[in-house]
Amino acid sequence: MLEKLFSKLEASYEDMVAIRRYLHQHPELSFQEDKTAKFIQSFYEKLNIEVKGKVGGNGVVARVYGSKPGKTVALRADFDALPIQDEKDVPYKSLVPGVMHACGHDGHTATLLLLAKALNELKDELEGTYVFIHQHAEEYAPGGAKPMIEDGCLDGVDVIFGTHLWAGEPTGTIQYRIGPIMAAADRFEIEIQGQGGHGAQPHKTKDAILTASQLVVNLQQIVSRRVNPVESAVVTVASFTAQNAFNVIADKAKLVGTVRTFNEEVRTFIEEEIERVIHGTCFTSDCAYNYDFVRGYPAVVNHAKETEFLIACAREVAEVKTIEETELQMGGEDFAYYLEKVPGTFFFTGAKPLDNSQGYPHHHPKFDIDENAMLIAAKTLGTAAINIHGKE
Amino acid sequence: MLEKLFSKLEASYEDMVAIRRYLHQHPELSFQEDKTAKFIQSFYEKLNIEVKGKVGGNGVVARVYGSKPGKTVALRADFDALPIQDEKDVPYKSLVPGVMHACGHDGHTATLLLLAKALNELKDELEGTYVFIHQHAEEYAPGGAKPMIEDGCLDGVDVIFGTHLWAGEPTGTIQYRIGPIMAAADRFEIEIQGQGGHGAQPHKTKDAILTASQLVVNLQQIVSRRVNPVESAVVTVASFTAQNAFNVIADKAKLVGTVRTFNEEVRTFIEEEIERVIHGTCFTSDCAYNYDFVRGYPAVVNHAKETEFLIACAREVAEVKTIEETELQMGGEDFAYYLEKVPGTFFFTGAKPLDNSQGYPHHHPKFDIDENAMLIAAKTLGTAAINIHGKE
Amino acid sequence: MLEKLFSKLEASYEDMVAIRRYLHQHPELSFQEDKTAKFIQSFYEKLNIEVKGKVGGNGVVARVYGSKPGKTVALRADFDALPIQDEKDVPYKSLVPGVMHACGHDGHTATLLLLAKALNELKDELEGTYVFIHQHAEEYAPGGAKPMIEDGCLDGVDVIFGTHLWAGEPTGTIQYRIGPIMAAADRFEIEIQGQGGHGAQPHKTKDAILTASQLVVNLQQIVSRRVNPVESAVVTVASFTAQNAFNVIADKAKLVGTVRTFNEEVRTFIEEEIERVIHGTCFTSDCAYNYDFVRGYPAVVNHAKETEFLIACAREVAEVKTIEETELQMGGEDFAYYLEKVPGTFFFTGAKPLDNSQGYPHHHPKFDIDENAMLIAAKTLGTAAINIHGKE
Amino acid sequence: MLEKLFSKLEASYEDMVAIRRYLHQHPELSFQEDKTAKFIQSFYEKLNIEVKGKVGGNGVVARVYGSKPGKTVALRADFDALPIQDEKDVPYKSLVPGVMHACGHDGHTATLLLLAKALNELKDELEGTYVFIHQHAEEYAPGGAKPMIEDGCLDGVDVIFGTHLWAGEPTGTIQYRIGPIMAAADRFEIEIQGQGGHGAQPHKTKDAILTASQLVVNLQQIVSRRVNPVESAVVTVASFTAQNAFNVIADKAKLVGTVRTFNEEVRTFIEEEIERVIHGTCFTSDCAYNYDFVRGYPAVVNHAKETEFLIACAREVAEVKTIEETELQMGGEDFAYYLEKVPGTFFFTGAKPLDNSQGYPHHHPKFDIDENAMLIAAKTLGTAAINIHGKE
Repeated sequence: MLEKLFSKLEASYEDMVAIRRYLHQHPELSFQEDKTAKFIQSFYEKLNIEVKGKVGGNGVVARVYGSKPGKTVALRADFDALPIQDEKDVPYKSLVPGVMHACGHDGHTATLLLLAKALNELKDELEGTYVFIHQHAEEYAPGGAKPMIEDGCLDGVDVIFGTHLWAGEPTGTIQYRIGPIMAAADRFEIEIQGQGGHGAQPHKTKDAILTASQLVVNLQQIVSRRVNPVESAVVTVASFTAQNAFNVIADKAKLVGTVRTFNEEVRTFIEEEIERVIHGTCFTSDCAYNYDFVRGYPAVVNHAKETEFLIACAREVAEVKTIEETELQMGGEDFAYYLEKVPGTFFFTGAKPLDNSQGYPHHHPKFDIDENAMLIAAKTLGTAAINIHGKE
Repeated sequence: MLEKLFSKLEASYEDMVAIRRYLHQHPELSFQEDKTAKFIQSFYEKLNIEVKGKVGGNGVVARVYGSKPGKTVALRADFDALPIQDEKDVPYKSLVPGVMHACGHDGHTATLLLLAKALNELKDELEGTYVFIHQHAEEYAPGGAKPMIEDGCLDGVDVIFGTHLWAGEPTGTIQYRIGPIMAAADRFEIEIQGQGGHGAQPHKTKDAILTASQLVVNLQQIVSRRVNPVESAVVTVASFTAQNAFNVIADKAKLVGTVRTFNEEVRTFIEEEIERVIHGTCFTSDCAYNYDFVRGYPAVVNHAKETEFLIACAREVAEVKTIEETELQMGGEDFAYYLEKVPGTFFFTGAKPLDNSQGYPHHHPKFDIDENAMLIAAKTLGTAAINIHGKE
Repeated sequence: MLEKLFSKLEASYEDMVAIRRYLHQHPELSFQEDKTAKFIQSFYEKLNIEVKGKVGGNGVVARVYGSKPGKTVALRADFDALPIQDEKDVPYKSLVPGVMHACGHDGHTATLLLLAKALNELKDELEGTYVFIHQHAEEYAPGGAKPMIEDGCLDGVDVIFGTHLWAGEPTGTIQYRIGPIMAAADRFEIEIQGQGGHGAQPHKTKDAILTASQLVVNLQQIVSRRVNPVESAVVTVASFTAQNAFNVIADKAKLVGTVRTFNEEVRTFIEEEIERVIHGTCFTSDCAYNYDFVRGYPAVVNHAKETEFLIACAREVAEVKTIEETELQMGGEDFAYYLEKVPGTFFFTGAKPLDNSQGYPHHHPKFDIDENAMLIAAKTLGTAAINIHGKE
Repeated sequence: MLEKLFSKLEASYEDMVAIRRYLHQHPELSFQEDKTAKFIQSFYEKLNIEVKGKVGGNGVVARVYGSKPGKTVALRADFDALPIQDEKDVPYKSLVPGVMHACGHDGHTATLLLLAKALNELKDELEGTYVFIHQHAEEYAPGGAKPMIEDGCLDGVDVIFGTHLWAGEPTGTIQYRIGPIMAAADRFEIEIQGQGGHGAQPHKTKDAILTASQLVVNLQQIVSRRVNPVESAVVTVASFTAQNAFNVIADKAKLVGTVRTFNEEVRTFIEEEIERVIHGTCFTSDCAYNYDFVRGYPAVVNHAKETEFLIACAREVAEVKTIEETELQMGGEDFAYYLEKVPGTFFFTGAKPLDNSQGYPHHHPKFDIDENAMLIAAKTLGTAAINIHGKE
């Protein structure tokens, strides 16, 4: 069965590239992906595959039914682009000024479309059901995954797989990780309200800059002393604003920052500890404060069994030369929400361009992928989709 | 002699008020006081008093010569206004939008002009020489005193007196202080240059916000531990700017602040200690820095003998009900420069408006003075100018 | 009258020196001055001067009544010694191992005894009443002044004078100061109770050392930002103890320190602010604390009129060459308590040994005074005691 | 072959328990294990197994040669005890006051001795060579592993295995970890040399307590900002001593602490960064310092292939019910040194006493193990020793 699938995928490679390049030329920002969604939907309609648009926003969900009973397995690809000006010098460069597929979502989409087509052609021989989740708005919180789930995209789904084409690793590499793989990325804002006054009369004021500075210093102890040292966590104060004339004392100061964690317990703990530190520090100088902690995506936490299963699947793909554990990635991904609902795993498919030994990082104006990686991603996901019925 | 002087001053009170109100309606900003300077110069010219304009800028210096030999005594009044919109509801309200005599310099000028006139009328009976220094640009560093001195306004001067009409104290009060009375007011700017990066990867960065925050905290020890506790000093960080998106780590941070001292040694010490603390704090996190310390006016340091002499003079003015030591004033005054060159004293003449129990502070849009205080100022300065020859 | 007094004092100088040296050889520690008290009491008894012992402890109070009505003026000398080994090489060296008159109280006592004798001899010509307060236990809080006052030593007293022989200034100098002259000297103890644990597991502990360290840093802002910069204040953490094996996390830490102020309002403010800072800092890391603030002597605050009067008196003493304002002295003195009850002043009488250009500081094992200063002290105090009736 | 081995081990279980209990009654401190070493040596001599004593100190190394060529596999057990008073109420309680096998090394030794006996009995059927490393002085740095290696105990060894009986996990559990498993545990001492003085005169001093406190606060940023957040590290200041009277300013302060890391690069980085922070902080207040960083054992870093091999071996032991990854352990172990020289792995064998649901932690006066765990340890190590020849 895998042989058939693989040869169909190989045969469709040119289409895959063509679709990816078309999408690359026509990128759309998160929550504005109307044309891309229609393009996807019409791809399925032409093949008479069951498809539903406007799922939780611009999401598109297609379903292929095998002839035999079996599990329902979901595969997900995201399709939004970024507000970045494409600076590459290639024929398929973005045609939309200031908008660019600088993270590889165009490749994700092309991969999933052709994999769906191949599985559809094999459906008489397949067990179970195949759900193709084309997700909008991954790049911009609150993201598309959550509303798509609320709109039913996971209904009946037993297991889910997703991958990210990864320009940092060479083509032929699959990187996995059991448990947390990508961080929860949260945002906080703190306003310190002191009492301003003349710079020569500190005793008549409550110095918001001094208090906010002590706060920045005191926050360090959350990571250094309160979080279990075997856990990873970051508390960053990214912005400190209290602009005044040289001879006054600051009335207020504003801090903005981010927290990164891999564990819901640690995340909640840090949210609370930040407030503890603010409260104590402000008490010390009799300042008032306002504190907002805005949760971004949770950590992507891979399930152990499905990750080990995926590793075994990757071994069946000849083009996969290296299978290795990835380091924890501090970035965020709303694939996290799917894994909170159903078992599954999210992995990286190496896609470093060959002619560019260093590669440009994701979100860079010259970012690109090695398109051959799409075939590897398709074969690995396809193997997982088929083997899930026979293994375990 | 004092009786004659006092009755002349009393007789001129209406003129004093008229001139003050005229100036109040026609305020000019520091370094732009052309018309005011001409007004003053022409006042003297009409009286055939020796006068020189354009002294060190817009400064005007007049001289009255007594018939007998004696000391040369200088009296100083400043005449610039402030960039403040006059919000008082009085007939003599400023006619210039956004500019206002909100510190009483109009009163200083009227006081000195009529005092000069009276002394001029008594010159046949007087010893010594009387120098009337009408100084421009007191409100805005580097100020007018310095260039006027460089242009010769103190040449031959043996002693100098000056007063400030003081809306915080009731009319009838004279406040003196031996030694420092008003602070040196300096400004500093510090730029911390770290190395920016992604908010989730602190180990690849040098966090300028954390370093600057530690710096603000560490600077506290200069006043708390290093300056002699019997000296007064203030180190204020007034501004902290490092504005960034929530998920980055700050590349640089800028601090701006002020230092107030009453003693040149402490002033220099603090200037140096700030650099020590910056250097050590930046070393700690491997950041670079830039540090500028810009000196404003030095402290006004009254001479003991002249201050005690002035106290004795004030006792001869019937309207003076209270003579008391003032607290150290953290504000600055470029009268400081005169006292670095010749002996003298600077004192406060209470001028709190009667119908306004609280008064508005200097530099307030509704600031005003009790004009009666001008007469007290004129009598006290005049007594000093005359008695200086007989006493000692 | 002063002439008579002065010639009597001059005649008694040898006795003054003899008594001072006798006391120097027989020093007694604070609250243990039995023999010294008896010596003083018997001095008065031999002269048939009214005297009372055991006043508020080892205190001795004598009274001389003038023949005419007048004010009751008190003069005070303290007489306790210090737990210091005398290392001087002089014939009158201490005979008591480890105990020494290292602060000049022996000289204070000799001065006052001979001044009392002289005034007693002149009593028929004097107005008013003269109270000689010989105070025990000045060196050791809570001191002897307080219980002596409670035991009536100030009853009926209108005014009080006291001096300290001052080895830091040359003989012939009188130093005065209106208002605060010596500091309130208080002590505080802070215990931080965290939660100990293994040095490798900070997340299971509350690190008392980190919290106490943050506290030491945070306390700096009290002096740097909250006390009026024209006031003098010191907050010193003198001791930090948290001794543990290298691989544990501290369960508790103890801080001990001192606060110096010159103003009761500032003193109370700092006592409260320390607790504010402790509370906030401990909240930040969820530690508990215990805080004790133990008041020592209050600031010595001289009354203005009496100080100016004393200056005038000093001018009548030929040996006084210099009369000057002293800097604020950060040390403490329980003369403070007398000045809380009755008007008066405390001043310094220069007593730097002639053969020792630098002098040893008070409380040094080689401390000594120039005994000639006793005569100056006696004349100045005596002038004050007599002139108080005629001046004002 | 494993069946034969297992049945021999089962048959020897009573001897294993007897030996363990004998050793438990006769514990010896690190570097003083003379009798224990002789006991071990004589055990081998009685069986005519090649054995060498005094290897790198009290170490004992025995060798069993299989009849066929093969790898040389080393198995290690440590045998020193701790300075703890045994408080258990059992017949085999320690007979030596204040010394106790409170970490299970008695069990390690009994396990290895009986395993060696069994393998020796099977040697005609075995491939390769078996090296039994009985190591002294694991509990006390610099430890026995290093000198035993220098004395040749690893000569010719291809692979090494070791286990720790682990009272925190139930019998039947094997815990492994690829890569770092136990931390490097280092010690540092910092002396801050300021300049002492009177508590009321901070400006004449360099306050060692304030500087040391700032240092403790500043050290937090090493873990919070400079170490890669996906690495584990701890920097603990365990001791802070600067004891003084309440009215002085501290001349010096001493800090002692520990650093825990799992990665040699991070370890060296932290050692250097601590000095950077000390240097900068001391510069800030012009204090001098002395800094010592004393390395303890490095991290125990398991080799991937040998760990996966060990997992497979554990699956062949019926009594092993759970095989799981352990958390990083912040404690140290000098097994680290063997793994720097040859491939191998160190794992935990659950040994929680059955009748004690919570168990007492290692190094507790009531610590004990479930002796059944020795059999599991012997079987697992034995399986590894035999299977190493056939697998790979």
